[in-house]
Amino acid sequence: MELATYACRSREELRAEFKKLRARYEELRHENLKLDMSRGKPSKLQLDLVSDMLSVLTDPQECIVDGDDARNYGDLAGLKCAREYWADVLGCKPSETFVGGNSSLSLMHDLIARGYTHGLKDSPRPWCKEERIKFLCPSPGYDRHFRVTESFGFELITVPMTPDGPDMDSVEQLVQDPQVKGIWCVPKYSNPQGYTYSDETVHRFANLKPEAPDFVIMWDNAYCVHEFDGVFEPFEDIISLCAQAGRPNMVYEFASTSKITFPGAGISVMASSEENIKYMTKLIAVQTISYDKINQLRHVRYLKDREHTIELMKQHATIMAPKFEMVLKILRSEVTAKGIAHWHHPKGGYFVCVAAMPGTAKRTLELCKRAGVVLTEAGATYPYGVDPHDSMIRIAPSYPPIEELEKAMMVFCTCLKLAALEKYLGLHEDFI
Amino acid sequence: MELATYACRSREELRAEFKKLRARYEELRHENLKLDMSRGKPSKLQLDLVSDMLSVLTDPQECIVDGDDARNYGDLAGLKCAREYWADVLGCKPSETFVGGNSSLSLMHDLIARGYTHGLKDSPRPWCKEERIKFLCPSPGYDRHFRVTESFGFELITVPMTPDGPDMDSVEQLVQDPQVKGIWCVPKYSNPQGYTYSDETVHRFANLKPEAPDFVIMWDNAYCVHEFDGVFEPFEDIISLCAQAGRPNMVYEFASTSKITFPGAGISVMASSEENIKYMTKLIAVQTISYDKINQLRHVRYLKDREHTIELMKQHATIMAPKFEMVLKILRSEVTAKGIAHWHHPKGGYFVCVAAMPGTAKRTLELCKRAGVVLTEAGATYPYGVDPHDSMIRIAPSYPPIEELEKAMMVFCTCLKLAALEKYLGLHEDFI
Repeated sequence: MELATYACRSREELRAEFKKLRARYEELRHENLKLDMSRGKPSKLQLDLVSDMLSVLTDPQECIVDGDDARNYGDLAGLKCAREYWADVLGCKPSETFVGGNSSLSLMHDLIARGYTHGLKDSPRPWCKEERIKFLCPSPGYDRHFRVTESFGFELITVPMTPDGPDMDSVEQLVQDPQVKGIWCVPKYSNPQGYTYSDETVHRFANLKPEAPDFVIMWDNAYCVHEFDGVFEPFEDIISLCAQAGRPNMVYEFASTSKITFPGAGISVMASSEENIKYMTKLIAVQTISYDKINQLRHVRYLKDREHTIELMKQHATIMAPKFEMVLKILRSEVTAKGIAHWHHPKGGYFVCVAAMPGTAKRTLELCKRAGVVLTEAGATYPYGVDPHDSMIRIAPSYPPIEELEKAMMVFCTCLKLAALEKYLGLHEDFI
Repeated sequence: MELATYACRSREELRAEFKKLRARYEELRHENLKLDMSRGKPSKLQLDLVSDMLSVLTDPQECIVDGDDARNYGDLAGLKCAREYWADVLGCKPSETFVGGNSSLSLMHDLIARGYTHGLKDSPRPWCKEERIKFLCPSPGYDRHFRVTESFGFELITVPMTPDGPDMDSVEQLVQDPQVKGIWCVPKYSNPQGYTYSDETVHRFANLKPEAPDFVIMWDNAYCVHEFDGVFEPFEDIISLCAQAGRPNMVYEFASTSKITFPGAGISVMASSEENIKYMTKLIAVQTISYDKINQLRHVRYLKDREHTIELMKQHATIMAPKFEMVLKILRSEVTAKGIAHWHHPKGGYFVCVAAMPGTAKRTLELCKRAGVVLTEAGATYPYGVDPHDSMIRIAPSYPPIEELEKAMMVFCTCLKLAALEKYLGLHEDFI
């Protein structure tokens, strides 16, 4: 028979539960575990899946494409075929793409840096000359996004996330402030909750009328083809939506193959209006002569096009899906009935985000750490690393083998419950 | 019998020479040439030389080195073996290196950008908060260096070049100005003259006592192993020299394999004091998770170490040397006796720099262009693209096949002489 939620149990019942869990925790601690669920790192199995990448381009003659030699200098915006590949994946035009190196984060960072040092296409002046810059951070969100804008001294403004995407009423109101210069977005399988923006949200983004003429939507389509459960979910081309709405320069979209081929050796893309791409290419020409075009060619030969890429993602899914199922199964069996946390069941992306009882996230992770299980730092999914409710916990199931994952989840659930019980019982946090 | 220099000929003799050359020029123009000596691009033969790069790493098992998987995220400062490789080449410690992607220019740009946005290790404040920043540009020099500092709005100050390197009396005086924040250097086979800094110059650099605490020597060792004539010339480790002189944080050294393996797909390095590398790595962590480590590993496997790299450079030399000999032979036979230009005979690097009669460089290149021969734009080797004497012309012999190069040099010498004769004869530049 299922027991009542913790909130409905007597103090005595809670004490008994606490005692039981504490004993369990001590057992787990003595196993000297060393498990990592902290970052969205693909597993070795996934890397082995794409081993042909290493030998797909070994003939020097094949380095010469469309009259250009991929081995030599030149083609700053990327090989023609690489721009065509990304245009196919994202649904935009090749002329609206700029193909980069192995890091889309780096393209995003450099875009913000250029806003700061030179200004964007429609900036009245470089952002470093502005008295104050504010940036919208739908939260929970991606810590590395927030850190980029924090690094340049911008004021980070938290926007609540909903299952349909960022709360658009808030966004529409906040962009009336001319100091608000942009917003971070992960439109599909958002990091960390795994929400996909609804059609309405996407269209409200495209139709934003921000006060700042150089307001920028940082549209990080990191998980654009990253389904692990069910079929590929098509997405709209944000570039043309913004153009149709009369602000073609308002959005930059980003993506990469970091979680399609090799995290350390993929290719990335930045897509925007032709005018923006031209403006940025001119500034990037000061920084580099070209990105690694041999690796671009390797990727085009291996991934071919969107359809073929989606086929490959189905193979990744066969590795990813059982891990997510395991995480969700254990959460269900161990936590659901206790009424101390909730979470979304994502169909793609790299994370499960557990909303723990307010005030227990940090403590949960501290307990996990002492038992040898590392998760993303509490608060990391909020601006400045501070979760105002101390509630959100990001679980990254991709990296550990499934047996380790199971063990790590057992530890996690034990700690989550212990932290909640401490709270209910008003216990000091010094029992270990 | 050799005729006298143009300066010693009579007006009538000059007119006859002009008529003869003009006819020759018209002939050349009608050949509808399309020849390019504009950039230091390796030739197809050189790229073919290193084709094994494409197949040196095809076994996924070999991607796991020193316990790390080069395919996955991580190792921001570079693979251990890649840092060791560069330390061996440059003569510094692995802990003093940061291994980057395919572009050392990009590492240099980003360093200057970080000085601007965040400040360097010893900066009192970010450079964007300073009223005025000045940067020293030994000239003629590398246009892309100058453009980086120009792009951030710094004032570029020309420092004269000598066969021993930048004029150190000037440098030592200029660095007394606290607004002077750095200097661009190419210590070996300088771009474009091919001068190697003397021991005295190198030691005076290490012993500089600039007024600005964050003065930075941008030591671009682009041609550190790039001899095409004679044996490898060893060079001193500027990192330890600066440390010995008591200013370990004053220098950043850069190098890349762009002209060792593939220009579009090499690896790069930034070397400096451990303190500087630590400081920079922290800032770079905001920009990226890591550079392409599979490509780092490919390079280490292929290039092995300094000694093996130098052996490979001897093979590049067998392709490069005949081209430089051709350029110098034609200059000697066509120009020397005319007394209208001089040049240095380099033993390495990628350029020959012709100092033409003042006021004739632009015109020479204009004539070349009309005859289908493209060279680096006149003035490009000076700050803001303006050569005060309109004299320096950079020839890049590496890219064209030798037959094309011979033809291009014949065109060049004809134009150089025509421009000089126009000057001597006071002719208007409208004869074509």
